[in-house]
Amino acid sequence: MSDSFSHIDKKNQPKMVNVSEKSISKRNATAFARMFLGKEIISHFRMDELKTKKGPVFQTAIIAGIQAVKKTWDVIPMCHPLPINGVDISIEIADEDHIEILCSVFTEGKTGIEMEALHGASVSALTVYDMCKALSQKMVIKEIKLLNKTGGKSDYHLKAKEK
Amino acid sequence: MSDSFSHIDKKNQPKMVNVSEKSISKRNATAFARMFLGKEIISHFRMDELKTKKGPVFQTAIIAGIQAVKKTWDVIPMCHPLPINGVDISIEIADEDHIEILCSVFTEGKTGIEMEALHGASVSALTVYDMCKALSQKMVIKEIKLLNKTGGKSDYHLKAKEK
Amino acid sequence: MSDSFSHIDKKNQPKMVNVSEKSISKRNATAFARMFLGKEIISHFRMDELKTKKGPVFQTAIIAGIQAVKKTWDVIPMCHPLPINGVDISIEIADEDHIEILCSVFTEGKTGIEMEALHGASVSALTVYDMCKALSQKMVIKEIKLLNKTGGKSDYHLKAKEK
Amino acid sequence: MSDSFSHIDKKNQPKMVNVSEKSISKRNATAFARMFLGKEIISHFRMDELKTKKGPVFQTAIIAGIQAVKKTWDVIPMCHPLPINGVDISIEIADEDHIEILCSVFTEGKTGIEMEALHGASVSALTVYDMCKALSQKMVIKEIKLLNKTGGKSDYHLKAKEK
Amino acid sequence: MSDSFSHIDKKNQPKMVNVSEKSISKRNATAFARMFLGKEIISHFRMDELKTKKGPVFQTAIIAGIQAVKKTWDVIPMCHPLPINGVDISIEIADEDHIEILCSVFTEGKTGIEMEALHGASVSALTVYDMCKALSQKMVIKEIKLLNKTGGKSDYHLKAKEK
Amino acid sequence: MSDSFSHIDKKNQPKMVNVSEKSISKRNATAFARMFLGKEIISHFRMDELKTKKGPVFQTAIIAGIQAVKKTWDVIPMCHPLPINGVDISIEIADEDHIEILCSVFTEGKTGIEMEALHGASVSALTVYDMCKALSQKMVIKEIKLLNKTGGKSDYHLKAKEK
Repeated sequence: MSDSFSHIDKKNQPKMVNVSEKSISKRNATAFARMFLGKEIISHFRMDELKTKKGPVFQTAIIAGIQAVKKTWDVIPMCHPLPINGVDISIEIADEDHIEILCSVFTEGKTGIEMEALHGASVSALTVYDMCKALSQKMVIKEIKLLNKTGGKSDYHLKAKEK
Repeated sequence: MSDSFSHIDKKNQPKMVNVSEKSISKRNATAFARMFLGKEIISHFRMDELKTKKGPVFQTAIIAGIQAVKKTWDVIPMCHPLPINGVDISIEIADEDHIEILCSVFTEGKTGIEMEALHGASVSALTVYDMCKALSQKMVIKEIKLLNKTGGKSDYHLKAKEK
Repeated sequence: MSDSFSHIDKKNQPKMVNVSEKSISKRNATAFARMFLGKEIISHFRMDELKTKKGPVFQTAIIAGIQAVKKTWDVIPMCHPLPINGVDISIEIADEDHIEILCSVFTEGKTGIEMEALHGASVSALTVYDMCKALSQKMVIKEIKLLNKTGGKSDYHLKAKEK
Repeated sequence: MSDSFSHIDKKNQPKMVNVSEKSISKRNATAFARMFLGKEIISHFRMDELKTKKGPVFQTAIIAGIQAVKKTWDVIPMCHPLPINGVDISIEIADEDHIEILCSVFTEGKTGIEMEALHGASVSALTVYDMCKALSQKMVIKEIKLLNKTGGKSDYHLKAKEK
Repeated sequence: MSDSFSHIDKKNQPKMVNVSEKSISKRNATAFARMFLGKEIISHFRMDELKTKKGPVFQTAIIAGIQAVKKTWDVIPMCHPLPINGVDISIEIADEDHIEILCSVFTEGKTGIEMEALHGASVSALTVYDMCKALSQKMVIKEIKLLNKTGGKSDYHLKAKEK
Repeated sequence: MSDSFSHIDKKNQPKMVNVSEKSISKRNATAFARMFLGKEIISHFRMDELKTKKGPVFQTAIIAGIQAVKKTWDVIPMCHPLPINGVDISIEIADEDHIEILCSVFTEGKTGIEMEALHGASVSALTVYDMCKALSQKMVIKEIKLLNKTGGKSDYHLKAKEK
């Protein structure tokens, strides 16, 4: 880790840091989101029907997250555009109140892809919110964080006790 | 609140619900985000320099959040495009480890604007992450939620004890 | 119907025609697409498994079509941006070789919404193609056309014999 | 050709397949569209005037198609963003009722570019529709298909009898 | 004219000012751009050929400008999204060295549309640059300014001597 | 310099020229904009307050310019999408009436990046206009031009006397 802000120049103005001299490497990053939906909404996802509502809600959220990954450079002002080699998002029911989202992103570029993973996880969570908000608006995103990234100058793995 | 999912039809397929028959009203919504940055990063924002790093970091995050509000319909698949009359985002240092973000959005339309407020707050938080990530990647978004919305069929206000 | 091109001025230059003097009315339009997939791909959608591949393929295509409807003004150069009140897309297996797509769009504006319906149907078809192309690339979109539109100066309904 | 769907994982959820291990190669693809305009509209393009309407209509459609090629990753949810090295679109009057569109796209990447070619051809056709719709709405896109692609694991060429 | 900055709040942070209380009116604005191309490029536009290069260069620039008008809210951070009722862009050869561009935009909204007109004129000029840059890179945009706007609290017309 | 237009084919139709055979090189380009604001607006930026309005106005303009650089391929129809390795924008008060903007862009690609630099400079200028227009609408962009580019087939440097 550096001891300075990457996207601010000496005059305290924002800039998009020049990564021309960095070399290209295969990189990936995984972000995690945890979201409170409440028992009522979760029960709609567990009901023993042939087709529950879980299908369209989670699939819409996964698709939205994948598309958000590709648009990260357009949403976060200082993010470099990066080639996106793959995106894998899963959404699981964690307990009777919560879902958990994992978003893994793969690239081959000059700078890390953690913002893409975090952006994908957060948009998937917001899309679940949008699909369920007619039932309740007490939903809360409880956590969005980086689990790990590899392939850059230094890898990062959240320690077990921090998870 | 209804007892069903708004964007799913009878065959369990996603659809963008038809709001043609709803009337137009002035509406607003406010979302809240709380984010752990850690003492090291927060200290950079508090240092008694003429110009601290807080300026460019928070301003970039506010601008990114305002732009994200306007793009919510493009990011959340079932969101209706809505006229955006105004956006007001503030970011405050809450304590020596955390910042808090408020995002208020104003519209005049046929459906609520809560997704826009939540999206603006989450993108502001992610932008702070991006601007600070060279210092530490242990930052965590700890909470994103709706504080209140007014102007629709039913208003919503988070109760004090839930805040 | 007029006897002239709407988006070309007297000097033969493209222009976005000024609709300021037109009044706002509720409008809708429905477009239709028919696509050859072939027996092999269709058989994957009919197999008597608990979960067939039809679910994720058709849902991804429906979501892509809904989002495309909202972006029509950005893709078709002379299209006016219009408020989108609702979008309803269905995809059916028509026979052992073909699927059929219906895309209905609802607005309240000064100009017709047929381009949005046609754009949504075509992007849904292309998304099915993308999801199935590892199986075969002999897929062909056989037809994209307007079925009907209402709410403008003159309604339009495809006659039965033309369907 | 594979015997499976590329963008669906084992749990039947959509995913953007990881192409990290594939090698980069020069690739191109050409798509074809055929569209019924009818004698009246076609006659406007053939009239022996110094400047016919054909110019602005076809040029607007070509420009729209080129821009659509570049946006394919944003419109088709599972498409990888690819560098676009070149786009060549031509529109010809095929007979007194029809036009034909060819869209060729060139890239250098890890995955094929056929969706870009198909998307470009379809948006060019829709733009012609938009420019001519004040004259008639009986226009029909009669065919959109892939003519050939080269540079990937296996080339594809539509056989003559299928053309 | 006010004596303050519209998009900055009391704490000197950017905000998108709330126009909810303003009433909707028909508005238009016209912007002007003047660009030096030089004798060589201009001569290509004047040559007495049946089809000169002027056609595709100016038409591409007009189409790009029209599309830019529609995207102004996405490019200028504090701009409100506005309905666009019409756009009219003309490009003329002013003398043997220069072209002049006029961009007129029509809306019906709560706030002025001058940024849309200025944005359309500037993107048309940049597109001419892009189309001609293989011939010379000495082109210079010499002026972009607002000519007039009507329909708001106060009209604005550039005085003759200032033109 | 060539003696022809790069994006026009033999039939005078626009095309996006195929750069497949060109080799990749490190490239950069710098554009310059000069803008008349007038004494009143400039005085707001010079006032001896702890925090002047200059901060949020210039920072918003810099951020808008950086984001515009990344979107050049979407705004200028024939521009190839290019990887953006870095963007550096500075805005200075030139005299009591004017500001000057420099926009430098870095890439590693098959074609030049001058349009990105020119686009970034022009959007920064337009954003300053938007932030100040409540004070006066007599602002004028007086000049946008390329200062230099390196890394392509031939470098370009504006000669001193032309500056």
